[in-house]
Amino acid sequence: MLDDLRNMLGAGAVDDSPEGLASHTHDWYPGALLRDRMGTPVPGPSVVVRPRDTGEVAAVLEWAQVTSTPVVPFGGGSSVVRGIEPDGAVVIDLERLNSISEVDEKSGLVTAGAGVTGPALRDHLAESGYLLGHEPQSVDISTVGGWVATRACGQLSAKYGGIEDLVRGLEAVLPGGRIVRTKTAPRRSTGPDLAGLLIGSEGALGVVTEVTLRVFPLPTERADLCLRFEHMTEGVQGCRVLARSDLGPTMVRLYDAEDAALFLRHHPDEPMGPLLLCSFDGDDSDLRRERAAELIDGTSGNDDLVAHWWEHRNDAVEEFRKVMAGEGLLGPHGIVDTIEVAGTWTVLRDLYHSVKEGLSEAAGLVGCHVSHVYPDGACLYFTMGSMCKSDAEAEEVDRKWWEITMRRTLDAGGTISHHHGVGRVRAGWIEEELGEWFEVLRLIKKAIDPK
Amino acid sequence: MLDDLRNMLGAGAVDDSPEGLASHTHDWYPGALLRDRMGTPVPGPSVVVRPRDTGEVAAVLEWAQVTSTPVVPFGGGSSVVRGIEPDGAVVIDLERLNSISEVDEKSGLVTAGAGVTGPALRDHLAESGYLLGHEPQSVDISTVGGWVATRACGQLSAKYGGIEDLVRGLEAVLPGGRIVRTKTAPRRSTGPDLAGLLIGSEGALGVVTEVTLRVFPLPTERADLCLRFEHMTEGVQGCRVLARSDLGPTMVRLYDAEDAALFLRHHPDEPMGPLLLCSFDGDDSDLRRERAAELIDGTSGNDDLVAHWWEHRNDAVEEFRKVMAGEGLLGPHGIVDTIEVAGTWTVLRDLYHSVKEGLSEAAGLVGCHVSHVYPDGACLYFTMGSMCKSDAEAEEVDRKWWEITMRRTLDAGGTISHHHGVGRVRAGWIEEELGEWFEVLRLIKKAIDPK
Repeated sequence: MLDDLRNMLGAGAVDDSPEGLASHTHDWYPGALLRDRMGTPVPGPSVVVRPRDTGEVAAVLEWAQVTSTPVVPFGGGSSVVRGIEPDGAVVIDLERLNSISEVDEKSGLVTAGAGVTGPALRDHLAESGYLLGHEPQSVDISTVGGWVATRACGQLSAKYGGIEDLVRGLEAVLPGGRIVRTKTAPRRSTGPDLAGLLIGSEGALGVVTEVTLRVFPLPTERADLCLRFEHMTEGVQGCRVLARSDLGPTMVRLYDAEDAALFLRHHPDEPMGPLLLCSFDGDDSDLRRERAAELIDGTSGNDDLVAHWWEHRNDAVEEFRKVMAGEGLLGPHGIVDTIEVAGTWTVLRDLYHSVKEGLSEAAGLVGCHVSHVYPDGACLYFTMGSMCKSDAEAEEVDRKWWEITMRRTLDAGGTISHHHGVGRVRAGWIEEELGEWFEVLRLIKKAIDPK
Repeated sequence: MLDDLRNMLGAGAVDDSPEGLASHTHDWYPGALLRDRMGTPVPGPSVVVRPRDTGEVAAVLEWAQVTSTPVVPFGGGSSVVRGIEPDGAVVIDLERLNSISEVDEKSGLVTAGAGVTGPALRDHLAESGYLLGHEPQSVDISTVGGWVATRACGQLSAKYGGIEDLVRGLEAVLPGGRIVRTKTAPRRSTGPDLAGLLIGSEGALGVVTEVTLRVFPLPTERADLCLRFEHMTEGVQGCRVLARSDLGPTMVRLYDAEDAALFLRHHPDEPMGPLLLCSFDGDDSDLRRERAAELIDGTSGNDDLVAHWWEHRNDAVEEFRKVMAGEGLLGPHGIVDTIEVAGTWTVLRDLYHSVKEGLSEAAGLVGCHVSHVYPDGACLYFTMGSMCKSDAEAEEVDRKWWEITMRRTLDAGGTISHHHGVGRVRAGWIEEELGEWFEVLRLIKKAIDPK
């Protein structure tokens, strides 16, 4: 196998070093990090290859089909749902697919290789005065290809949408090595949305190699608004009227009392209770902020907290890493996990209470925030933490959190994943989520990937 | 066959009357209307069935698979691209799937059967103070199922999006009778977008039976803006900056000189030349209109023309019918057709000039308007008319228009259909449009519909 791959890609592109394998063994799934902490890491890949271009990706996939070798595409490895666990497979690390085109300023588009990282793209765009608008918490450790493959959605989705709204053109290699390209177009009615099959396919239907994305001018001004509520229900109502208005917020987040306490842990003088943060940018930001303050029935809060959020919005990644390394506030056997689900405004209240109640019985602390809003519903993002007596207990606790959240979400009419994807951790519930579509997906998978 | 269907659905649901067959023989494709005018209509269906519910649709599709009988789903029959031409097949008319739910005001959603017509839905929503926002010119003669099956897009898409943005949940019957349902959710990352396979499938992958759609509060105020330009290029530039702004227009249309002349034919005192119409509604409409007027480098026009457009925006349907009946301004052998294509702003200028130039040599009159705008591009909507010496010549002229427009669009890097769909009229160019995806679509079709 190694000889095959070396002949195909050159020796420098084939890595079976202990370090190479170790760094591609798993993603940021807490269960996998726990296994590391326990000294019993999950089994890694057999080899890591780093193709230089789409043609080489195609060659690897053709070879994989002929030899019936399982392969796993790898971007930043920042999934948190057991999306990467190669277990003997060949990992295709896409880091060398790192070219970025000049910004097409006329159409507001940029084309980037799947391996381009968040920071590389951000810096490149900023040079021309643009931003992507896709800002997941993992933006510093994830890649363009990963965003598309997992159907990611950033924290500024209220303005910029999810990755599916940003992708305007796409190149991918399907199993067996077939290269497909979706022409860049603002819209089309030329049959079903085929590129949409790859957005969220998590590697099952092909490897995304290049993407053309919308970009937006860097905003020059920003107006922040912070509101407080006595009860979460009033805050949710506030999110709803804002999402249904024409005011165009860039970011909307509502923390429940427990999540607000977490967010405000370095602000001991702030009052407790549900907290709404939102920002407006672009034309007439101040006016729109004003209108939102009038529209939403809440108490004025400290607007500086919104700037604090902007500054520290991705700190959770490092804090998560610390806890899972046994170095955080939850002690040597601490466990922390996050699970995001979504629902229409109609089911959201029951969904929130049901999941929160269930998790509260199974975790030391549970916070929840509304992290993404839409005219018809929202994402509920739960964060759970527990101090455990052993790592084995931590494993069991995490397993329970997933069981509770998935079961109660399905029962309440919610959808089991908003933007983290399915991975192996949600695999047990996906058939119930998709219903008869699950079997259709199986048929499509078989048609595209007969082996 | 008739006995099978009568046993399955009851005699009242099976129609082989001459009138029933005649009214399901074709859509509004000019070539088919020409055939009527020539007295040699295209061959009709063998029978029309009208199932009462999803279960009956499933029964028909199961029977069709077992007996290898071709079936054609039928909504309003308002396609203009030869989407309906049953030619001996069994037509499934979905008109009895006409239930509409109460508006879910909390989430802004309504659920409607595939056979619900535009006017029925509009009236139903208006009673509760809502609108759908999907306003194709054909809205009075088309159906919910047809909008989804053809990936339609209305004239107010700048604000409300295309049908793919409005569909939040969907029920369909796949070939063989499998019923699939997509749960209503604001967003999800639970794998690829499977419902997206049916949006634009034009009946090839299944029959849409019920759809849950976003609805919006009826706007209370509207601010209109009309601007004039010396050259089309300046107008396109104006559309572009407006589409890239945060001003949120509801409707944006830019007519080139020839299309403006058509639009203004009852306004002889208006100056000629490219004409931009746009409207803003919702919060701060006047302010946003003002900002747009400042932003766009054009000359103030007559804002009342925008109200004129709103009032007469769907008149073209009746005018088209008249011309094709040989009763219009183009005489007994007149031919008129419309072809919409799309492209990024980067290719739009060349696309416009190339298609316009080509068509000008093949038509008595050619007008074009930018009918839908996006941050990254726009739709060019061409209208062609010719007085011909015979209907046979008219057929030939129409064929040439399609050849010219498709060829030049592909060569200029545009996409061959924006919102009318593919049908049989674009079938000859779809493989070039889709590239390798065409073969993948064939594989998916075979997986979902093995017969």
